[in-house]
Amino acid sequence: MVSHSTLTLGPYPRGFHLITNEVFDAVRQWPEQGMLSVFMKHTSAGLCINENADADVRHDFELFFNRLAPEDFPGILHAIEGPDDMPAHIKSVLSGTAINIPVVDGQPALGTWQGIFLCEFRDRATPRKLIISIIE
Amino acid sequence: MVSHSTLTLGPYPRGFHLITNEVFDAVRQWPEQGMLSVFMKHTSAGLCINENADADVRHDFELFFNRLAPEDFPGILHAIEGPDDMPAHIKSVLSGTAINIPVVDGQPALGTWQGIFLCEFRDRATPRKLIISIIE
Amino acid sequence: MVSHSTLTLGPYPRGFHLITNEVFDAVRQWPEQGMLSVFMKHTSAGLCINENADADVRHDFELFFNRLAPEDFPGILHAIEGPDDMPAHIKSVLSGTAINIPVVDGQPALGTWQGIFLCEFRDRATPRKLIISIIE
Repeated sequence: MVSHSTLTLGPYPRGFHLITNEVFDAVRQWPEQGMLSVFMKHTSAGLCINENADADVRHDFELFFNRLAPEDFPGILHAIEGPDDMPAHIKSVLSGTAINIPVVDGQPALGTWQGIFLCEFRDRATPRKLIISIIE
Repeated sequence: MVSHSTLTLGPYPRGFHLITNEVFDAVRQWPEQGMLSVFMKHTSAGLCINENADADVRHDFELFFNRLAPEDFPGILHAIEGPDDMPAHIKSVLSGTAINIPVVDGQPALGTWQGIFLCEFRDRATPRKLIISIIE
Repeated sequence: MVSHSTLTLGPYPRGFHLITNEVFDAVRQWPEQGMLSVFMKHTSAGLCINENADADVRHDFELFFNRLAPEDFPGILHAIEGPDDMPAHIKSVLSGTAINIPVVDGQPALGTWQGIFLCEFRDRATPRKLIISIIE
């Protein structure tokens, strides 16, 4: 059995943001055993799981991704919405745009240091729509 | 309940290709609520979701991935099938090789600008086998 | 129906390691049709699927990831556990930390050349906890 709900978040400033609480609060009822899936309905923002404690980690991710896919990457054509447009598409593929978390004994089974990141890659983002799915 | 079908695509030329229609046509019946999963059975091609409208986006992805993992990357050993062999393996891990899309109210819930990409990283590819799974 | 088990692996030395057998042996019973999901409960190691035959491939992945996110990446702040700490977080997002494999006719439907990699990004790793889930 699969059930869905929609969660709208932000707009967030460009950068990596912890959204574990917002996602978990959107789950109406945890199954005893199941799988939580979160799906980003956009192509210039990402979803991934990483370290939830030190804000420097989010800073460093933003720094690294900007260096990897900079606004002035030579040869890029797609810039309809500005120079941050195509780098945002690239970064969202590299970070990923969906996550799955096992639900074990009625709880999401994240490791101690794991949190859910919303990766906002646009300078002037709009709110982001996520689909929260529970498989049980 | 999980059901599967196999979809063989291509061979495509090296590059990023929109395959949303081919994948959706391979689904015999959409459940009312469920999850669509697509799995690439190869290690030198990828699957990901990104912008479906502007062909420049696919051009730019190909450009970026080629720059990130070039054929002449120093120190690489694995070249059994030619200089595009190991870069193709690397790129497939970075792009991802499987996707999940929620099925909501009988339809795949892609965002307006989202499409499914087959990322062909080999110069002379063979047809690619995908497994299409429906969880309901 | 979803069922889970926990698998503890390693510690492995830094690098890419084939763990297909260990993961498959942890599945108590394969469903006739289903989905296998493997989830890494850590933020400095990864899980992905790639070429299972030539050890050079694992060597080349280690080389590539080290070059992409080196220990001396300028501007990085998070180094609580040493210079390999933040690069390990970055690499785990790029490699991915979870995989799904369709189970078709009672067997995991990996392609001929596909294997499961545990990507150990820390110099002195501890054992890694994975959650093995079967959806049927």
